Amino acid sequence: MRTMLKAGIFGATGYTGFRLVDIVRRHPEVEIGFATSERSAGSRLSDVFACPWDIALIAAGDAPLDEVDAAFLCLPHGASIPAVQRVVEAGVRAIDLSADFRLSDPQVYEQWYNTPHTATDLLAEAVYGLPELHREAVAGARLVANPGCYPTSVILGLYPLAKQNLISGNSVIVDSKSGVSGAGRGLSLKTHFVEAHANFSPYNIGHQHRHIPEMEAELSAALDRPLSVTFSPHLLPTNQGILSTMYVTLVEPWSESELLSLYGETYAGEPFVHVLPAGDLATLRHVVNTNRCTISLTLAGEDQLIVCAAIDNLIKGASGQAVQNFNVMFGLEETTGLET
Amino acid sequence: MRTMLKAGIFGATGYTGFRLVDIVRRHPEVEIGFATSERSAGSRLSDVFACPWDIALIAAGDAPLDEVDAAFLCLPHGASIPAVQRVVEAGVRAIDLSADFRLSDPQVYEQWYNTPHTATDLLAEAVYGLPELHREAVAGARLVANPGCYPTSVILGLYPLAKQNLISGNSVIVDSKSGVSGAGRGLSLKTHFVEAHANFSPYNIGHQHRHIPEMEAELSAALDRPLSVTFSPHLLPTNQGILSTMYVTLVEPWSESELLSLYGETYAGEPFVHVLPAGDLATLRHVVNTNRCTISLTLAGEDQLIVCAAIDNLIKGASGQAVQNFNVMFGLEETTGLET
Amino acid sequence: MRTMLKAGIFGATGYTGFRLVDIVRRHPEVEIGFATSERSAGSRLSDVFACPWDIALIAAGDAPLDEVDAAFLCLPHGASIPAVQRVVEAGVRAIDLSADFRLSDPQVYEQWYNTPHTATDLLAEAVYGLPELHREAVAGARLVANPGCYPTSVILGLYPLAKQNLISGNSVIVDSKSGVSGAGRGLSLKTHFVEAHANFSPYNIGHQHRHIPEMEAELSAALDRPLSVTFSPHLLPTNQGILSTMYVTLVEPWSESELLSLYGETYAGEPFVHVLPAGDLATLRHVVNTNRCTISLTLAGEDQLIVCAAIDNLIKGASGQAVQNFNVMFGLEETTGLET
Amino acid sequence: MRTMLKAGIFGATGYTGFRLVDIVRRHPEVEIGFATSERSAGSRLSDVFACPWDIALIAAGDAPLDEVDAAFLCLPHGASIPAVQRVVEAGVRAIDLSADFRLSDPQVYEQWYNTPHTATDLLAEAVYGLPELHREAVAGARLVANPGCYPTSVILGLYPLAKQNLISGNSVIVDSKSGVSGAGRGLSLKTHFVEAHANFSPYNIGHQHRHIPEMEAELSAALDRPLSVTFSPHLLPTNQGILSTMYVTLVEPWSESELLSLYGETYAGEPFVHVLPAGDLATLRHVVNTNRCTISLTLAGEDQLIVCAAIDNLIKGASGQAVQNFNVMFGLEETTGLET
Repeated sequence: MRTMLKAGIFGATGYTGFRLVDIVRRHPEVEIGFATSERSAGSRLSDVFACPWDIALIAAGDAPLDEVDAAFLCLPHGASIPAVQRVVEAGVRAIDLSADFRLSDPQVYEQWYNTPHTATDLLAEAVYGLPELHREAVAGARLVANPGCYPTSVILGLYPLAKQNLISGNSVIVDSKSGVSGAGRGLSLKTHFVEAHANFSPYNIGHQHRHIPEMEAELSAALDRPLSVTFSPHLLPTNQGILSTMYVTLVEPWSESELLSLYGETYAGEPFVHVLPAGDLATLRHVVNTNRCTISLTLAGEDQLIVCAAIDNLIKGASGQAVQNFNVMFGLEETTGLET
Repeated sequence: MRTMLKAGIFGATGYTGFRLVDIVRRHPEVEIGFATSERSAGSRLSDVFACPWDIALIAAGDAPLDEVDAAFLCLPHGASIPAVQRVVEAGVRAIDLSADFRLSDPQVYEQWYNTPHTATDLLAEAVYGLPELHREAVAGARLVANPGCYPTSVILGLYPLAKQNLISGNSVIVDSKSGVSGAGRGLSLKTHFVEAHANFSPYNIGHQHRHIPEMEAELSAALDRPLSVTFSPHLLPTNQGILSTMYVTLVEPWSESELLSLYGETYAGEPFVHVLPAGDLATLRHVVNTNRCTISLTLAGEDQLIVCAAIDNLIKGASGQAVQNFNVMFGLEETTGLET
Repeated sequence: MRTMLKAGIFGATGYTGFRLVDIVRRHPEVEIGFATSERSAGSRLSDVFACPWDIALIAAGDAPLDEVDAAFLCLPHGASIPAVQRVVEAGVRAIDLSADFRLSDPQVYEQWYNTPHTATDLLAEAVYGLPELHREAVAGARLVANPGCYPTSVILGLYPLAKQNLISGNSVIVDSKSGVSGAGRGLSLKTHFVEAHANFSPYNIGHQHRHIPEMEAELSAALDRPLSVTFSPHLLPTNQGILSTMYVTLVEPWSESELLSLYGETYAGEPFVHVLPAGDLATLRHVVNTNRCTISLTLAGEDQLIVCAAIDNLIKGASGQAVQNFNVMFGLEETTGLET
Repeated sequence: MRTMLKAGIFGATGYTGFRLVDIVRRHPEVEIGFATSERSAGSRLSDVFACPWDIALIAAGDAPLDEVDAAFLCLPHGASIPAVQRVVEAGVRAIDLSADFRLSDPQVYEQWYNTPHTATDLLAEAVYGLPELHREAVAGARLVANPGCYPTSVILGLYPLAKQNLISGNSVIVDSKSGVSGAGRGLSLKTHFVEAHANFSPYNIGHQHRHIPEMEAELSAALDRPLSVTFSPHLLPTNQGILSTMYVTLVEPWSESELLSLYGETYAGEPFVHVLPAGDLATLRHVVNTNRCTISLTLAGEDQLIVCAAIDNLIKGASGQAVQNFNVMFGLEETTGLET
């Protein structure tokens, strides 16, 4: 009889944490060791969310790290650094969903987050947890930095072009649209129902959003030269889902079928990447409530390509991908607990 | 040449206040004397709302009451009492959109708001500003208490039955549904987009909501005996609009056409009450962004009547009705500035 | 090694059929034998819905009934009668999601559907598939009539009161609200996005909706005397979910805790009925994308009870309940394939 | 005393036609001469839309052209050509809201609409009705072709750059998002509530959408050389509003303040164009239910500019702009009837 793995969850009461608890509790090979919440320690999860199953919420300081095999951290950036340090020092493998360990260069971190990184050794060791690109490194990692939601859609959408050296020039344009859950459960006028409903709004457009350095780092590495991403996020009047529409000038004309072959080969065998046939376009409907990334390709001119990539920001863009990384780290079938 | 009237607005930066500013600035016979905001005094309205027209926001204490003919007060209950006192003492006619002067009996106020009323003389004088019922008193009033949003739909929907003594028993059932703007612009988890979108939820159902005593007072007065209202409000995943579905047992069988005649006669000449022909049902679509109340009647059995009444909670349920009252008070055509 | 069961699905391309395919394909003990579609026979399901998994669609006439253990029928009422006859004659157990076999009295069927029933023998044999009330009969049935969506919420919500003889008088009031998927995938102005968005509308209110006789039959049987249901359905601007708000006069005062005990005992051990603690209210959020029915109780007066019952109209109100019935019929754990 | 003008409306029962009727009936200097509907001739408008005001619907063939000064045509493309011919021959000035007279080159029309143009003389005479660019020609026109909704946002958003010769290269990228009313009131799966709600989908992206030739013609004329537009429309889960996010490489670095000055000067005195101050971004909330176009400018790099332009597709993108053109044609104040 197989022994169950045990995982702890830090920060269980945000949208990401709640969804992670829900995935992990149904995962056939893991059980939840603990779930923490700063604000709601001492309560139960059903006090915080409308859900019939339940779990006790404890303070992070009371987390029994010696009882778990892995810890997921759904904490705000900055707060994650000391928590990850504590987890790793306890010999527990960590999957960090914050931005704290995604940028391997501490100077880039400081530039975008306006504060020096205080655990540069762990930063150097952390693996960027996009399994489709870094599966092997994830498998052996002590610390996995789970990618941001926007970067997951953008990197998966452009990686085959970058790796194949098909991108002309040194920049691409990414026009992304996200559901409101991406803004978190904290209260702000921006996420007030009346402000977001029947509205659609760009924010932080140009070269301002903190998800940009992740995209640039991964795509530049694949391309083997620096690539700059002009990135325009927009807020959609819905809860879940990201669609990124990406505009690339190709170094030379390729046909749609050649491009589809390239994508098909690059992602052959990937259980969670779904390349649509010619003529179909990726939509939120393809991916909401799944761990999939759906990609479509459209030529706008002979060297002008439009890539659309859709994910569920809470699943493939956060908690689902975290569990996918967990499965890779612990040698489980990669889709375990993620087929919904 | 006619002189323009001048009106001041206290509390211009909530949803009700903002909508009131928007109606008043387009009103052909009034101009805005001032607009106050506690939090945003010193800013302009366009700093707070996406709007191309604009107005300066001042502190309530700086309001030049000697320059205006009337003041609208869009303040939280409790805060309205001293502000109304100041307005009335300055000889300015007041239209109060809070709950502070709606319940003529100070004991009922204390019972529902858990605090004694501190201006019982003004309370005794205040007129309940539902023009369809109290037009004459409104015309002469120094202080008008603008009705609550739910009560506007319920009282207009049931008044013809109450006045005609057609209601059997001593209670009615009211099942109401409101858009999220009714909960105000303050921040709370209840009004977070992700919580309210793709959701529908009852709240304060039974005999708990503070709008109940208004309904009971007006309907009991029309009926000339006490009527109790079982009231179930629900939150709709949309911005504006209230639909109240009301269940009444009739004292004796009436036909749908007799009932439609009764309603038609009761509201004959009313510019803002719209009784639908047999077979049609009131919906939000009939009323959103208008000052109308649309009513439909359906017999469920020979003595079982269902009345549906729809209004826009921000217009006929608040700011539009306030301007309607203003028009009555100042002898203007009642629809001025309200035909949209 | 256990042999997999096989099930066929008639009418796989409506919202109910599509959701059923999605549940059955993930069910660990069943595989899909065939899926039919009148309009899309010869296509694949991914031609009709945005989904990455797929299945061939065949004409109903080509369905290989000899290869399956059970058939689910998601056909329009009327069309289901001959299809069920064919299935049953082939020795295949049938779960019919249409209204054709829900009303055991052929005269009641004729009265509500304006056409005589043409398979009265099968009608007499059919079991009303609400497992919480009729589990044993379902287990042995050759033909199960899966309940309507509204009736599922109403019957589960009122059954404990009816069985305990707590309902005063001979009628109850049910005010229900449903997401738009309940209206099906057919095209009509009522389900046009622009008409339903930012709107909320009653329809067929009073004593007109065809789901009424199911509710009345089941509740009258539990109560052992005729009960009439005044029923007001409304269309919500969302996709999935039903909330029914029900108003009952009790024969004598009961406390909230006594009522909660009654409900708790009635549904003890039921995996899909969830009675909320005092003070909590049922919402769509509790049930969307699950097979649960969440129920809350609120006293509005000492003998006036408000029951709120929420379900997902596509799951517990249709396809999930159909699979629950299947599990009961084939002796499987009742929750198999339904834990989401 | 001023005589009222009279206008007829062809095609009053689509979303554009209905909105046009609503604007015209409130216009202080026009009255509605007639309103036609192919499907609903003989009915009244309130049979087709939930509205308390009303108007009779007649067949197009019965339109009394001799009684009106102008006709608005809200007909499908193709159908508009013979109707416009009839109107103009009757000596009535025409404002055509279809695509039939927007493309001055008949070969371009044939290329995009797959059918030869059958009224090339009128085509040559027609004025493209974007008053901000062609006010003088509109004033004297017998036939005005009202621009498409997407082109209105795109042309107003890029015109200052084109006129000033600031656009580098021969193409721009336009990523547009529109509410569902843009797809019309006809029935299709794409506009079914359940398909569009909680979804977001690109369609006809690249160089396929029929609004492209309008954009290219107007911008190329301003730029005085051919400009190609890569255009990606997307469907938003809301009713009204278009936001176009446009990516332009500048011929040389310009500062944000220089660019804002250019836009400010270009649109100085324009009542319906609203350029936001630096740092603010255009959203649907700025424009829904108004005749405004709100524009924001953001530099993404020293020569990389992002222009966001928002309009209400039914107002500035259709019926409001048609009335603006009418006002210009008849020498009225341009904002008459449009200040809402």
